[in-house]
Amino acid sequence: MNKDSGAYARAGVDLNAGRRATELMKAAVQATYTPEVLAGIGSFGGLFSASRLKEMSDPVLVASTDGVGTKTRVAARLNRWDTVGHDIVNHCINDILVQGARPLFFLDYVASSVLDPEQTATIVRGVAAACQVAGCALLGGETAEMPGVYGEGEIDIVGTIVGVLDRPELIDGSAIEEGDHILALPSSGLHTNGFSLARAVLADENWVEPREELGRESIGDALLRPHRSYLPLINRLQEARMPIHGMAHITGGGIVENLPRILPAGCAAAIRRDSWTIPPIFHLIQKLGGVEEAEMTRVFNLGLGLLLVLPAGAVSLAQRILGDELLAVGQIEKGRPEVRFV
Amino acid sequence: MNKDSGAYARAGVDLNAGRRATELMKAAVQATYTPEVLAGIGSFGGLFSASRLKEMSDPVLVASTDGVGTKTRVAARLNRWDTVGHDIVNHCINDILVQGARPLFFLDYVASSVLDPEQTATIVRGVAAACQVAGCALLGGETAEMPGVYGEGEIDIVGTIVGVLDRPELIDGSAIEEGDHILALPSSGLHTNGFSLARAVLADENWVEPREELGRESIGDALLRPHRSYLPLINRLQEARMPIHGMAHITGGGIVENLPRILPAGCAAAIRRDSWTIPPIFHLIQKLGGVEEAEMTRVFNLGLGLLLVLPAGAVSLAQRILGDELLAVGQIEKGRPEVRFV
Repeated sequence: MNKDSGAYARAGVDLNAGRRATELMKAAVQATYTPEVLAGIGSFGGLFSASRLKEMSDPVLVASTDGVGTKTRVAARLNRWDTVGHDIVNHCINDILVQGARPLFFLDYVASSVLDPEQTATIVRGVAAACQVAGCALLGGETAEMPGVYGEGEIDIVGTIVGVLDRPELIDGSAIEEGDHILALPSSGLHTNGFSLARAVLADENWVEPREELGRESIGDALLRPHRSYLPLINRLQEARMPIHGMAHITGGGIVENLPRILPAGCAAAIRRDSWTIPPIFHLIQKLGGVEEAEMTRVFNLGLGLLLVLPAGAVSLAQRILGDELLAVGQIEKGRPEVRFV
Repeated sequence: MNKDSGAYARAGVDLNAGRRATELMKAAVQATYTPEVLAGIGSFGGLFSASRLKEMSDPVLVASTDGVGTKTRVAARLNRWDTVGHDIVNHCINDILVQGARPLFFLDYVASSVLDPEQTATIVRGVAAACQVAGCALLGGETAEMPGVYGEGEIDIVGTIVGVLDRPELIDGSAIEEGDHILALPSSGLHTNGFSLARAVLADENWVEPREELGRESIGDALLRPHRSYLPLINRLQEARMPIHGMAHITGGGIVENLPRILPAGCAAAIRRDSWTIPPIFHLIQKLGGVEEAEMTRVFNLGLGLLLVLPAGAVSLAQRILGDELLAVGQIEKGRPEVRFV
């Protein structure tokens, strides 16, 4: 009867479902352990050595918590649970990456009405796989069964990331000035935002058949594509000592709400609407739902997952390093800190 | 329609409910900011200066994620949202405290079917108040609206804490040896465990009238009492340089599952059943539900919130420092790492 004790699955003390899930995910979690991990599964808190921070001039920890939102309902409809773990990890990685931080460790929380050990383990293995790619330890986690709180078969996935940067390398947008260029890295799809709208619009469509307007991809596959991590690409710019003036992760609120978060007073962002191709899944949603342009712009990333602001003189080097991935989409102009589409 | 963008409330970019909630909680969150906080509300990730870690010989970060479980359903039945924030913070504080860590910062996640700004703000103000008491910065947070995932009016509250310790001061139970004494600090009630069982048993009772067997407290008040933080008490022992061999936070799984987590091979824990008084709320649950002793022991803390293992020679000083709060409940004996009630 003690459903609450599902909360202890990852600490290794729960019985039944929680314990079985822990067994199923244990090897994947342990594979993420960097040499800094002193204690993980089984201890009250995860222990992570911070001795390397002593070598930094002014270490700053950067932390963020996020959920994947109702993308879990897409996973449920398709009964595919191997990608949502990547979503939550990569979302969190990007959120601290835009400030110049590299990930140290991650903690996950998976809750449902009733825990299915195999499904939970599949989700956490996805979390672990994405952590491993990023060199980020999956230091802790939690699974909880809460019948009544969650709808039957419904699930929520939450993650917390902690990263580090040396303060002189903090990227906060304060260096942005008139004449800087705005560049973009493509998203892989919706990432983790806009799923309530997308699901409502697409509810009655067939999600498994290939569709011509999606380049023979199915709606399900298009929706479920994992949130992209920009860590490897941004790392290449950082290794080249690229002077990045600002970065914005394009999530809920789209370009129009996320880019202004880093614009200093007196700086507006002029984005050229014709400078990138909006992926077909967004056109399909707009067409089938009759969604207005303004709403599309506020709800979705529309194909741009991360924006960078670079001094004009750095653009050609950045393009040489990142190649065609890097799109020139706009410029910083004088004005109020807002996005103007031109 | 974009319910997902509720996910950005705390980042300051969401409209409507999320934004209103953020305004309502902002002052309370900012009141938790220690001088280490370089950026909080409004930035992609929270920034926390770790420069003080450079003064440690071997700094170790300690992190834990947890939820309050279905204690939220008690709060919902009573429509009282000011205490659950304290629950999640204090639960997390204790989880890292038992390893010797002091809290640095906290991140919260509050999700529901539909966000009520005042209710959400009340919860987060509770989180902030508990953080402030502990000198812990509320560095970030997230609110999410997920209709369909959560039952109507249902809510989940998740928290992540990051603390620090200097490695020579790590408490992991490895110093525990035969002859050590086991001491306990009282819980305030159920803390955050056993609510599915408690609610099932007590469902048809009156929760607001004072009850004789609860010392004139109502069932609602008894159930909702906040999880106690043991940080101030343990700090007093640490200031006196008390050699603490081990500590266990008694949560889901009770004494029998949590104490063995820190027992080294060859050490058993003998706990005297008559050494403390089980609070009346547990007797009431047992009586009304006809719950067996073994289940009570596995589901509830039964009045003991934290166990300490001290060398025999340190006990009298610990008792002088903590007074009557500190209960002598048992001893470490030779044997398998398990709890024996004597």
